[in-house]
Amino acid sequence: MGEQPVVTLLTDFGLSDSYVAEMKAAMLAVERGLCLVDVAHQLELGDVQAAQYLLERFWHRFPRGTVHLVVVDPGVGTSRRAIAATNHGHGFVAPDNGILSPILEGAEVVQLPIPDGAAPTFHGRDVFAPAAARLAAGAPLAELGRPFTGWHRFPLPDPKRENHVTSGTVVHVDRFGTLVTNIRGHELGSGVEIQVGESRIGPLRRTFADVEPGALVAFIGSNNTVEVAVRDGSATAELGTGLGAPVRAVPARRYTCC
Amino acid sequence: MGEQPVVTLLTDFGLSDSYVAEMKAAMLAVERGLCLVDVAHQLELGDVQAAQYLLERFWHRFPRGTVHLVVVDPGVGTSRRAIAATNHGHGFVAPDNGILSPILEGAEVVQLPIPDGAAPTFHGRDVFAPAAARLAAGAPLAELGRPFTGWHRFPLPDPKRENHVTSGTVVHVDRFGTLVTNIRGHELGSGVEIQVGESRIGPLRRTFADVEPGALVAFIGSNNTVEVAVRDGSATAELGTGLGAPVRAVPARRYTCC
Amino acid sequence: MGEQPVVTLLTDFGLSDSYVAEMKAAMLAVERGLCLVDVAHQLELGDVQAAQYLLERFWHRFPRGTVHLVVVDPGVGTSRRAIAATNHGHGFVAPDNGILSPILEGAEVVQLPIPDGAAPTFHGRDVFAPAAARLAAGAPLAELGRPFTGWHRFPLPDPKRENHVTSGTVVHVDRFGTLVTNIRGHELGSGVEIQVGESRIGPLRRTFADVEPGALVAFIGSNNTVEVAVRDGSATAELGTGLGAPVRAVPARRYTCC
Repeated sequence: MGEQPVVTLLTDFGLSDSYVAEMKAAMLAVERGLCLVDVAHQLELGDVQAAQYLLERFWHRFPRGTVHLVVVDPGVGTSRRAIAATNHGHGFVAPDNGILSPILEGAEVVQLPIPDGAAPTFHGRDVFAPAAARLAAGAPLAELGRPFTGWHRFPLPDPKRENHVTSGTVVHVDRFGTLVTNIRGHELGSGVEIQVGESRIGPLRRTFADVEPGALVAFIGSNNTVEVAVRDGSATAELGTGLGAPVRAVPARRYTCC
Repeated sequence: MGEQPVVTLLTDFGLSDSYVAEMKAAMLAVERGLCLVDVAHQLELGDVQAAQYLLERFWHRFPRGTVHLVVVDPGVGTSRRAIAATNHGHGFVAPDNGILSPILEGAEVVQLPIPDGAAPTFHGRDVFAPAAARLAAGAPLAELGRPFTGWHRFPLPDPKRENHVTSGTVVHVDRFGTLVTNIRGHELGSGVEIQVGESRIGPLRRTFADVEPGALVAFIGSNNTVEVAVRDGSATAELGTGLGAPVRAVPARRYTCC
Repeated sequence: MGEQPVVTLLTDFGLSDSYVAEMKAAMLAVERGLCLVDVAHQLELGDVQAAQYLLERFWHRFPRGTVHLVVVDPGVGTSRRAIAATNHGHGFVAPDNGILSPILEGAEVVQLPIPDGAAPTFHGRDVFAPAAARLAAGAPLAELGRPFTGWHRFPLPDPKRENHVTSGTVVHVDRFGTLVTNIRGHELGSGVEIQVGESRIGPLRRTFADVEPGALVAFIGSNNTVEVAVRDGSATAELGTGLGAPVRAVPARRYTCC
C-alpha cells in the first residue's frame, strides 16, 4: 500500500488511433493513480514473436508488483482465450496466443471471462485493461477468473550446441541495426568466434570501442546474449541480413587450422 | 480530492520536437502530480476532423473530472478564439475551430484570454496547457475566462436514411486498415448488407472469426459503428479506398431479388 | 517532499525497442512514484546536436527539481565519461559528449562511476537512469560521483553581428517544416528583413496571420528566436533548404536603396 502500482503496456495498436488511450481510460476507470508505462505500440501488426522477445527482456527489470499488459492479438474475436498470470511477483495479462511464453512456466494462470458487452474486436480495452488494473490495484489473481492450465506456450527457439559449436539465430534487430541473438553469453567459453550466416565477425569483444568505427563487432549485449553490431553503423545494413539469420559461435582455433 | 487529476493530450505536434514536452512542463508548473495521458500526437498536420473523430471516441471512457487538451490548431495566431468547456463532468480545452464539436452541445464554454507574452505561434503551451492544468486541478471554469456562446461546431457528417437504405461514410481508417464508418449499429435492423462504394461486403457479422482469413467482413466495431475489415489483412488496401468513401447498409433482400 | 519528482527523458532509442522502458524500470526500481515525461525518442541516431537544441528549449520550462535524462550516446562503451550536473535548481544526467552544453556553464558536475556489471553498450539503463532517479528522489549530487571539471562543452553556434547584419543559421526544422534559427529576437532592432540563403523572406511579422496562406513569413518564434515558416505549409519544402542553412537579418533600408 502507498506505492503507486505500475502497469506496462505493449501492443501493436500504433500511435495514431485512440486505442491505447482507450485502454488507459479503462484502467483509470478501475483504479486512479496507476503509473502507466508505455513499452512500445508500433510492433508490426500481429507480431507475437516480437512482443514475446521484448517482454522477456523488460518484465523482470520492473519492481515487483508491476503488471504487464501485452496486447498483440491477431486472434481477437476467435476462440483464443484471454488469460492473466502471476509469476515471480509480477502480473501479466494477455491473449493466450503464446505471447506470455517467457513467463508461463511455473506461473499461476486464470482464464478471464469475456463480459457481456465487450467489443468482440477490442478485448484490449474491454477485457485485458480492466483485468490489468484490478491486478495492479491488488486484487488476487483468483478474483479475475478461474484457474486455467491449458495455456499455449511457444518459446523463442533455443540455440543448439554440438561439437563445441553453438548454433543460434537472430531474434531481434534493434533501431541501431544491431543483430540480437538468442545465444546466451554465459554459456560460451572464452576463445569463440562469431559467424552470421557465412560472414565471420570475429571474437567476442567487450564493446564497440574495441573496434574501429565502421567495423563489425560481436559482444555480449545488454540482455546477456551475443549481439552483432557495426560501430557507428548498422549491422543489418552491412550484412544484408536480419531476423532469423543463423548465428554460430565456433572455437576460434577452427579458423586458425584451416 | 486526493485523486490524481488526469489530463489527456491530443495534438499534431509529432514526437520529434519538444512541443509536447513544453506543454507538459507548462501544466506541471501549474499543478504537480497530474496524470498526463498521451492520446496521439502524429495526426496529419492540421487535421481537425481526425482529432474530432478520436475525441468523440475516447473522452467519455475516462473518469469524470478528466480534462482533455486538444491542440490541432492551424489557425494559431489568427483571430480564432481559445476556449475551455465542461460537459458531462469532463473538461475540454482547445482552439475554437470545431475540434470540440463532439461535446459543445449543452456545454458550458468560456473564452480563454491570451496572456501578454504568450507566443503567438504556440498557444498550446502558453494558453491551452495552463488552462487545462488549472481546470484539472479543480479551478472552476468561470475562473478561466468569460462565458462565450459564439463557438463553432462542425460535427462530422451524419448518415442519411431513405427507403430502408442507410448511407454513411468512412470517417476513420485505423492502423489495421479497417474502415470505420459513421453508421451506428443500433440504428440498423437485422438483415442488412453492407456496401463500400460499389463493393458488396456482405451481412453484418459479429467479428473477424465469422469469416475466413483474408476475407472482407463488416461488423459493429468497438465504437458502436459499422466497420469493414479484412481478417488478418487491410480493408483499405483490399478495397483501394479509405477516408470519405461512401458506405451503405441495404436490406439484404435487395440482393436476393435482382 | 510530498511533490512527485519529475524526470524527463530524451533519447535516440526509438519507440520499437524496450530500451526506454528498461530505463524507466531502472528508475522505478530506485524510486517509485516518479513522474516520467517523454520528450522525444526518435532523434536521428547519435544526433547530439538535435538533443542539445531540444534540451535548451525545454529544460527551464519544467518545475525546479526536475531531472533531465538525456541519452544520445554514440560513444557508449568508449572512454567518454558519464556525468550528472545541477544548475538553476534542475538536475541533468547524460554522457559527457557535449549534449549538456546548454547548462554546463556554472553547473556543479560529478562523474558517475560505472558499476560492475553495467552493460558496456547500455549505460542509459545501467548508469544514467539510476543516477537520474536518485537525483530526482533527492539524493545530493555529491553522492552520485566525484566532482568533475573536465567536461566537454560544444555549444551550438552563435550568430555573428557585423555592419548591422546578423548572420545566423537554421538550428532546427520542426514537424511543420518551420526553420528555427539561432538569431535571438531581442537582439534585433526593428526594421530588419530576414533572408534564408539567397531568398528574401521579408520583415519580421508577429505571426502567421500577418501573411496570406501559402506565403513565407518570418517571426520571433516560441523559443524567442527568428523562425521562418509558410502559413499552412512547409518552409523547408518551399525553400528547399533546412538544417544549417545560413540566415541573415539585414536592415530593411538595404533593400530599398538598391
